[in-house]
Amino acid sequence: MTKMSRFTKLLVAMLVASGLILATGGWTDAQAAPKYRWKLAQTWGTGFPIFGDAVNLMAELVKEMSNGEMEIRIDSSNKHKAAFGILDMVMAGQYEMGHSASYYWKGKDVNTMFFTTMPFGMIAPEQYAWFYYGGGMELMKKVYDKHGVYSFPGGNTSNQMGGWFRKEINTLDDFKGLKMRIPGFAGEVLSKLGVVVTNIPPGELYTALDRGTIDALEWVGPSLDLNMGFQKIAPYYYTGWHEPATELQFMVNQKKFDELPKHLQKILTIAMQFAAYDMYARSYHESAVNWASIEKEYPNVKIRTFSPEIIAAMKKANDELLEATAAKDATFKEIWESQKAYMKKARKWTAISDFAYLKDNLE
Amino acid sequence: MTKMSRFTKLLVAMLVASGLILATGGWTDAQAAPKYRWKLAQTWGTGFPIFGDAVNLMAELVKEMSNGEMEIRIDSSNKHKAAFGILDMVMAGQYEMGHSASYYWKGKDVNTMFFTTMPFGMIAPEQYAWFYYGGGMELMKKVYDKHGVYSFPGGNTSNQMGGWFRKEINTLDDFKGLKMRIPGFAGEVLSKLGVVVTNIPPGELYTALDRGTIDALEWVGPSLDLNMGFQKIAPYYYTGWHEPATELQFMVNQKKFDELPKHLQKILTIAMQFAAYDMYARSYHESAVNWASIEKEYPNVKIRTFSPEIIAAMKKANDELLEATAAKDATFKEIWESQKAYMKKARKWTAISDFAYLKDNLE
Repeated sequence: MTKMSRFTKLLVAMLVASGLILATGGWTDAQAAPKYRWKLAQTWGTGFPIFGDAVNLMAELVKEMSNGEMEIRIDSSNKHKAAFGILDMVMAGQYEMGHSASYYWKGKDVNTMFFTTMPFGMIAPEQYAWFYYGGGMELMKKVYDKHGVYSFPGGNTSNQMGGWFRKEINTLDDFKGLKMRIPGFAGEVLSKLGVVVTNIPPGELYTALDRGTIDALEWVGPSLDLNMGFQKIAPYYYTGWHEPATELQFMVNQKKFDELPKHLQKILTIAMQFAAYDMYARSYHESAVNWASIEKEYPNVKIRTFSPEIIAAMKKANDELLEATAAKDATFKEIWESQKAYMKKARKWTAISDFAYLKDNLE
Repeated sequence: MTKMSRFTKLLVAMLVASGLILATGGWTDAQAAPKYRWKLAQTWGTGFPIFGDAVNLMAELVKEMSNGEMEIRIDSSNKHKAAFGILDMVMAGQYEMGHSASYYWKGKDVNTMFFTTMPFGMIAPEQYAWFYYGGGMELMKKVYDKHGVYSFPGGNTSNQMGGWFRKEINTLDDFKGLKMRIPGFAGEVLSKLGVVVTNIPPGELYTALDRGTIDALEWVGPSLDLNMGFQKIAPYYYTGWHEPATELQFMVNQKKFDELPKHLQKILTIAMQFAAYDMYARSYHESAVNWASIEKEYPNVKIRTFSPEIIAAMKKANDELLEATAAKDATFKEIWESQKAYMKKARKWTAISDFAYLKDNLE
């Protein structure tokens, strides 16, 4: 309730006292009390920038477009204490919705890993085309139907950087014994090349890198790396290979979604999909602005790209890992082949459009 | 009204006969009759693919999200006969909305040209970041407020190709006297390099190119070029320089928009902005699929990029034209400088993210 006159406050107090407006939860505006009050659990902590903002935007849009008929309360991991339990909680109906990243569920269902980003996979415009026009949404539905959850794109970080390194990586030998924080499937790829992969909580990363507990780490990109301060202690910033288009994820419990009236289903769907696209624009902006800051304030930071020899070895390790799983899982094979075939076509278009253009217009 | 049973039809006929449902226009569903019936005029003809589909999607979303409270009728240029009169009709309130491209109005107001795409300008992800987070929407509002119209992004074609040429262009001399269909500001740039720029209606383009009335033309990209058939008669397909991120435009009469209730304003705004993003994914998809067809079925088609000498001359001509106008118009100068400064930052991010990645992953 906002901006109530003293008279209104008095009136409300009287009505509450008499029990007349308890049923509506105290709403006195022209806008009706929400008929649908939902809860969303997110992996991120309170105030987490960009990712959390995408969730807030989605919830605001639902409230505004539904004229207050539906409201979504957002619980951060500070509250629910289960950053990596989002899928379980949405499956169970404990929360109607969740916001996280699909590849976090690969331990539960290996096929979920395809719907975030893949090493040496598609860039964001290619991947959005695959999701919405190349069969991606249908494959994601097939995977998540088994879990009773609808899954939607939840916001793109744009291409992620390959990480911060204290020493330059010139040959494959430099990977042997290198201690690096790089989670998920990309960590498995680097393990095959001799990297000692560790996982360290975000709050301890800076100190671990500073004290040499680790030699390198990957986080996101300038949009979120700047505030972590890694540029102060690790001068080599490598370009990306492992997460070319990281797409976060909205999840909705299927039973709860199906019970919504049609117009709220549409409002919710468009609010999620719009917030996802918007986060891509936002991430691009923040990365551009923050990279300009790093370049200006930390002239010692050097951009490096892994050598062709290293990239070839990473690709080989990546393909071997994927092929081993594809041989055992028909759905895994189906999705991987869909992505490979689509990327082949889309990349040819990228090559003669944005790439050809950029080649002559880098300054 | 769709799928009525014979009984329902009979009932409706009886009610109409008795005058009982005339007031609601014959709506018999649970959904109420629309309180707001709007009309949109589009530049495109009936059934125009991709562009027209984006408009249809926007109108469907408004109807579904508002639960039928608002409906938008779409008139194509076949009906209103004023493909390039959309801004005037929306300003006058003859149509509440329009769909077109901002650069079509540069004859009326030169500052409208910045909100579609610029030669040697931003690519789509950079431009969306500029629109929504880099001040672009505010500058567009400043320009369109003078005309009593709100302007929104209306769908991106992705990077447009430089055009179909019957002969290869190797030196600047090859431009001298070359007859080319290339409209708008890009045509002015090529004029300065000696190209004889002509405009020819779309329906006559194929014949004109086939008979040698023109030597070259630009249209869009594989998404829309394939059906025009140019690949059969002009083997050189040049990569783009003049429209790196063509964004179409939704327009709304400000008075009409301001009269809508807040929730419908939000529904309409998000429907437009979502349809715009969706058209970008759709265009990327169609270009990828159609380029694969051209490559397979027309092996004589060759991709070419203009030489560094030619690109440098185009850039110089482009800058001279823009500087001449900026010297006379403070708003023009303000917008151009905003775009240049933003592109400089965003391009540095593009260079170390998608571009660096693509360089090693073109196959």
